Amino acid sequence: MVNIMPELRQNPITKDWVIIAPERSKRPNQFKQHRVQEKITKLDREEKARCPFCPGNEEICGKAVLAYYEDFGEDAQSKWSLRVVPNKFPALVEGEETSRITEGTGNFFVKMNGVGYHEIVIEHPEHFQTIATMPCKSVENIISSYIERYQVLIKKPNVELITIFRNNGPGAGTSLRHPHSQIIASPIIPIHIRHMIEEAVRYFDTMGRCIYCNMIKQEKILGKRVILETDYFVAFAPFFSRSPFETWILPKKHKASFATISNIEKKDLARVLIDILKRLYHGLDNPDYNYMIHSAPYQEDPADYYHWHLQILPKLYKVAGFELGSGIYLNSTSPEENAKYLKEIKADVSE
Amino acid sequence: MVNIMPELRQNPITKDWVIIAPERSKRPNQFKQHRVQEKITKLDREEKARCPFCPGNEEICGKAVLAYYEDFGEDAQSKWSLRVVPNKFPALVEGEETSRITEGTGNFFVKMNGVGYHEIVIEHPEHFQTIATMPCKSVENIISSYIERYQVLIKKPNVELITIFRNNGPGAGTSLRHPHSQIIASPIIPIHIRHMIEEAVRYFDTMGRCIYCNMIKQEKILGKRVILETDYFVAFAPFFSRSPFETWILPKKHKASFATISNIEKKDLARVLIDILKRLYHGLDNPDYNYMIHSAPYQEDPADYYHWHLQILPKLYKVAGFELGSGIYLNSTSPEENAKYLKEIKADVSE
Repeated sequence: MVNIMPELRQNPITKDWVIIAPERSKRPNQFKQHRVQEKITKLDREEKARCPFCPGNEEICGKAVLAYYEDFGEDAQSKWSLRVVPNKFPALVEGEETSRITEGTGNFFVKMNGVGYHEIVIEHPEHFQTIATMPCKSVENIISSYIERYQVLIKKPNVELITIFRNNGPGAGTSLRHPHSQIIASPIIPIHIRHMIEEAVRYFDTMGRCIYCNMIKQEKILGKRVILETDYFVAFAPFFSRSPFETWILPKKHKASFATISNIEKKDLARVLIDILKRLYHGLDNPDYNYMIHSAPYQEDPADYYHWHLQILPKLYKVAGFELGSGIYLNSTSPEENAKYLKEIKADVSE
Repeated sequence: MVNIMPELRQNPITKDWVIIAPERSKRPNQFKQHRVQEKITKLDREEKARCPFCPGNEEICGKAVLAYYEDFGEDAQSKWSLRVVPNKFPALVEGEETSRITEGTGNFFVKMNGVGYHEIVIEHPEHFQTIATMPCKSVENIISSYIERYQVLIKKPNVELITIFRNNGPGAGTSLRHPHSQIIASPIIPIHIRHMIEEAVRYFDTMGRCIYCNMIKQEKILGKRVILETDYFVAFAPFFSRSPFETWILPKKHKASFATISNIEKKDLARVLIDILKRLYHGLDNPDYNYMIHSAPYQEDPADYYHWHLQILPKLYKVAGFELGSGIYLNSTSPEENAKYLKEIKADVSE
């Protein structure tokens, strides 16, 4: 065991601390999951037969709120290339009005009706696809659908925040393998988001510029955590990575809202997203992960100080009592070493 | 599927929101893990043979910083009833001084050396015990060891916060079955704790009393979420439960620091802790869980507005993209229904 002194590192955006204690752990390639699948088994076929997202089962999910079509040839099972449907088991449901109700004396407990939207993006007709193995066009479709639904949902009454996320694999919280993302529009701005904005405003008021723009600049100068840079995006392992192989994708052009990205940025983002997820897929054998798009919430005008971005968190760690009790994350790997490992993985992105 | 409208509920202490969406889920008894073990298998015996915490392997963990002894009879394998040892793979390590170091231009990234303490409480000599099955005396020992170590560690230089926690089961982040807790003394007060204190101060400044004391009062009046009440403690499912069967144990007597509890409170806490964990053990078949003791951090004097307590979070949920992206927890069960279920479980606490 090499006895490297653990470090505490602060996230300059949230002011959270993480412990980076690489001596507790193994080398990057030891995080391999040993489960990239060569063949589709009988169990897989049975699972596919029950899948509500597969072509032929469209009526289970009901009417799509958005669909894209593609000519897959005469024998193809599907005419659609992507569908967005309301979640059958929604966390929040459509409703006209929100109202605060209280419980206890002196309005001690506050609750409200769970008004909002919860949609599923069925990303591809093919059950066994995942973003790491999709062609660019399919991933451009996914991003287009995020933008289209974002623009529609943000205009709905009572919508304050839109969270776009993808849970990949059972460890990341999904039981359905068919490639899909989720969009939840909620009627409140949570304190977690408020704090991030407040800190970004504070930084802007002092330094006169966007904290995220400065982070991109710093990472480019330091170089050691950058995995990939294109014309429009940069992907790196954050200095304050909470989990092994945490990766952030940031647009180089300052923009507060994800929904305002240009067509050329969208195409580039598709390539970058495939590239990074392919590196994880090959470098770590298809690990479970969550990704989340952080965008400026509605009814704010954070054009100067907020910067939309995408966070990928591979599920190679367990949040346990220490994290829950203190709010300090414990990462047993080195972000620099992990970035170097991912940088060296070959990731051919085909058109 | 009964279509109950989901609710958003706010934690009055942290101001976080949770979504309570019980229509997404199952009845309380469907959370049973079906794994209370009747017999010890060959695999279990092999696991025990490798256990570094078992009597006979004391030299693996090294010198205890605290040990209690008990006469288990002549044939007993162990003379100790509890040992506290430094963690062999510490998150933070003992050191004389902390220093801030920066990376990037303009001191953009701040880090510090990971100075602190990380100790393991080996709670009982017997490998297959767990708190739910221990006699009161053993659990009193555990609590005594927490208090003793808290009082020692809090006087060390550079210690700002002490987190006492227990990870039970692989889903809760431990690979070792031998009953143990952990204590981490860290050199910073994380923003997560700062916010909780700030909100408690704000409440105190407005209402002139402790927000936790008021919560106890409210829960006792409402009744529907209280699982257990003794002379000194009350245990309930919080209004804003993040996870199915989340349970809080609060001392009825206002006290900011856990380390100041009296002997009679300690004995009562042991009984309450066994009682609640027994209800979970029998009602849900030994679920994985984390528990954390929240106590006022060092160098603060939050006597009037802070209130130490113990939070139990069964690992019956997965934090996924939505929680990570928005900071809103999604609980697919009703705290009231879960409290009722746990209240009805028989939990005989023997001496």
